[in-house]
Amino acid sequence: MPKLYWEDFHPGAVAVYGPRKVTREEIVAFAAEFDPQPMHLDEAAARATPLGGLGASGWHSCCLLMRMIADGFVLNSSSMGAPGIEEVRWLKPLRPDTNIRVRVTVLETRPSQTRPEMGLTKFRYELLDETGNCLTTMVSTAMLGRREPGERA
Amino acid sequence: MPKLYWEDFHPGAVAVYGPRKVTREEIVAFAAEFDPQPMHLDEAAARATPLGGLGASGWHSCCLLMRMIADGFVLNSSSMGAPGIEEVRWLKPLRPDTNIRVRVTVLETRPSQTRPEMGLTKFRYELLDETGNCLTTMVSTAMLGRREPGERA
Repeated sequence: MPKLYWEDFHPGAVAVYGPRKVTREEIVAFAAEFDPQPMHLDEAAARATPLGGLGASGWHSCCLLMRMIADGFVLNSSSMGAPGIEEVRWLKPLRPDTNIRVRVTVLETRPSQTRPEMGLTKFRYELLDETGNCLTTMVSTAMLGRREPGERA
Repeated sequence: MPKLYWEDFHPGAVAVYGPRKVTREEIVAFAAEFDPQPMHLDEAAARATPLGGLGASGWHSCCLLMRMIADGFVLNSSSMGAPGIEEVRWLKPLRPDTNIRVRVTVLETRPSQTRPEMGLTKFRYELLDETGNCLTTMVSTAMLGRREPGERA
């Protein structure tokens, strides 16, 4: 697949990456390391929480999403990273043994005002379960290298 | 320490938790699992990237921040989770062997309009290195159980 540059991302474009299955053991191991709240560690304890049963840490969902987009397109792009995250919404729990995918939509794209070799592309990411329910949404702007550097602003 | 409820968080209050040291091995292991971009995996490859040398995945910074606040106060609170994240800014790279802390500021607090047993508290989190530089900021609203349920709105 040819390497992707800033010029290759057009507003409205949609792609889906994955799938990935997340196991109970992965959910518990991640939580034990980074987010050891009972709702992410133990089925019985989780039933008494707002999750109503064992669910992954929201951070685990974000990290799985990151891995799927890395394999999906980021590692094959001129990505220069991201300055941050504009929004994350944890809409539904991610349960053990769910097959997840990520749907990526290009929201906006613009050249950098200060760096002619770089462009900025805002993406919406949706973490989906096998029946298409959206579990988590994320909006973030990526810094991408340009195939053809622009004029300095 | 007595358990913390929604009523115990007052706007303007500040606390610092940690420290935690993050090693090169942890940075590389996290990246290999969740964010396998060269700038998080290999020192030589990282020098040619905007990070200018090996730095942790931004998601790793978020996860380390989560663990420090979990140990710092969340696990000793009536936390009911969070609906999402309002903003993350990755300001400076997190380098190997940095001793990090997290400074927590209460920004706003309000009762839930629909659930008398719950309140909402917006926090700003700042991930700091040993000299006080801020590496990452995060804003998120937590759902917290109330010590004394309020009137239904």
